[in-house]
This record gives sequence, C-alpha cells and structure tokens, in this order.
Amino acid sequence: MKIFGIDPGLRSTGWGVINIDGHALSWRGDGMIRPDVSAPDEDRLHQITTEMTAVLETHQPDLVGIEEIFVAKNPSSALRLGMARGAALVAVAAYGCPVQVISARRVKQNVTGSGRADKNQITAMVSRLLGVTPKGVDSADALAIAIATMNDAPVENTTAGARTNDPLADQPSGLDAAIQRALAKENAS
Amino acid sequence: MKIFGIDPGLRSTGWGVINIDGHALSWRGDGMIRPDVSAPDEDRLHQITTEMTAVLETHQPDLVGIEEIFVAKNPSSALRLGMARGAALVAVAAYGCPVQVISARRVKQNVTGSGRADKNQITAMVSRLLGVTPKGVDSADALAIAIATMNDAPVENTTAGARTNDPLADQPSGLDAAIQRALAKENAS
Repeated sequence: MKIFGIDPGLRSTGWGVINIDGHALSWRGDGMIRPDVSAPDEDRLHQITTEMTAVLETHQPDLVGIEEIFVAKNPSSALRLGMARGAALVAVAAYGCPVQVISARRVKQNVTGSGRADKNQITAMVSRLLGVTPKGVDSADALAIAIATMNDAPVENTTAGARTNDPLADQPSGLDAAIQRALAKENAS
Repeated sequence: MKIFGIDPGLRSTGWGVINIDGHALSWRGDGMIRPDVSAPDEDRLHQITTEMTAVLETHQPDLVGIEEIFVAKNPSSALRLGMARGAALVAVAAYGCPVQVISARRVKQNVTGSGRADKNQITAMVSRLLGVTPKGVDSADALAIAIATMNDAPVENTTAGARTNDPLADQPSGLDAAIQRALAKENAS
C-alpha cells in the first residue's frame, strides 16, 4: 500500500510517498514543488495543481494524507496557505483516491513520540525510519504526514477498495514496533 | 471586450460575465457554483475548478477580475476561503487570460459610488446597469466585480493583447457616464 503525504505552501509544497509491505516501511519518493515566485498567484497555483497531478500519476498512491486546517498565523497568511492547499487538493480529487486528514500534533506524536517535536526532530526520525535523507524540510514533513497517516488511518475514513491490501489491518502493531525501534535508536544516539 | 468576475467561496462561488462595446454595457451570463456540501473538501474544490473551467470556456472572457485578499473573519475561515479562491484561480490560469485584482472597496465605489455600499445596494445597481436580475447574491457580486474591473483596470496590469479592443482606452468616460446615469435614476427611485 502506497501512502502519499502533502505539506502545502505557495512558496514550496512538499510531497512524499512511502510504501508499507508487511512490516517493511520503505521510501518511494519525495520532493518540493516550488512555483516561480515572480509569477502571479494564479500561475503559481496552477503550477502546484499541474505538478502535483504529475507526481500522483507517477507514484499511484492508494491513500493521501494532509494536515488538517491549522493556522497560527494571521488571516492573510491563512488565506494564501488555503489557496495552495486548495490547488493541491484539486489535483488529488482529479487523481481520485481517498484523502485522510490528520492533525499536526498527531503527525508529531506518531513519528517522533512527542506532540511537541520540532522540524529537526521530525526530519531526523523520517530519515531513520526510511533510510533516506529527504530532499528538504517540506518534503520531510510530507513524508512524516504519510507515515503518520498510515499509522493513524481509521478504516471507516477510507474506501473499502483502498484498504483491501492494507497490512495494518492484520498487523496493527507492525509500524508501531518499527517506530519504537527507531525511537530507541534515536534516543540512544 | 468580455470581462469575467469571480466571487469565490466553498459553499457558493459566484461568477458573472459582461460585455462592453463602445458605450454599451451588456450582461452575458451569471451563476453560482454550489459544490455538494456533504462532499469532502477536495471534491468540492475539484467541482469549483471543473465548473469554472467549463464556464470560462463557454464565455471566453478577455479579462478576469477577482477581489483582492481581504479577510475580516478568523484564520480558519480565511483558509477555507483561500482554498476556494485557489481552486477558482487554477481554472483561470488553465484558461489563460489576464487577471485583475481589485479591492472590495473599489468594487463598491465603482458600481454604487460609495465604498460603504451594502449587498442590496450592489445588487440593485448591477440590475439597473445590466437590465437583468442576477441569479443570486454571489453572482451579483461577481457581476459587480466584473463591472468595476472593467472601469478600473489600469493598462499596465493587463497584457497588450487583452487591451487591443478595449473601448475604454478611447472613451474613458463611457462607463462612468453610464454609471452616473444609473446612479441618478437609482437615487431618484
């Protein structure tokens, strides 16, 4: 089962894809969509939708995870973040797989064991769990969202089709065990 | 020259198209895109992009007007409004015509003569100027945005191609005069 995570933004939209096969968690890809900052908003949004569509078609995920609406900044920043989130979700809807919304706190808890982890801790845990160095902070976040989505996804929020091959249904503690092992190594290092 | 106005929203995205030919301002169409409220956000956003694309292809506008980012509500509302705005702008970018951003205050000033006009006054003036009753409040706003965009558009913010047939370049007071006449009638009624 392939899970795709998205960390949207008008300057940089991160994406990451992981695969879970039995107990084995593996990296399939990650990257950032960085629209031309000198272009008008509509062209930047269109670039997000177009590139996201291409990445989804390439990686063919079974489930997409995205952080729930959370805004600590001012309304203007929220509106611009919303536009980027909207452009990314348009691509997901066109691709057509279930979307799982997860809170930022749950992502941190699932991936690092702490709801107050910072970006460096998240990147370190993602690198350790997947055995790769993410291409950037935003794609590391996207990979963390994908990992947490896989671990967190309630069956009732996804379609039956997308869950047919989900190994977590039979081995719910597989990823948890992997994360615990990685956490132990991380804490020991 | 055809001008297209957009009033984005996740519940209802209004659109309206006007035509200016010499001094004659005419209505070409208006409507609302109302995504299924029971659908997940990504499907609602996709519906906005898809329907907006169809409307743009049907009406073939030369210029699109949209209100600038203005947020009086909370960040969460702003983020949701931003998603709808992003989905609409993705369609505009795919269609490929210039976009003119205009402030809500300038829309009110241009269409009613007052920057503090309420929605009823805007709808009344749009009806009077165009000789039609808009299909709803959101499409009346979109038509007002189109009218104000046409009247307000500075030449330097649009492409040369889009302005070639702009009658306002030769008759800058044509629409102003029409609005003044309509305003006089409105105030007398």
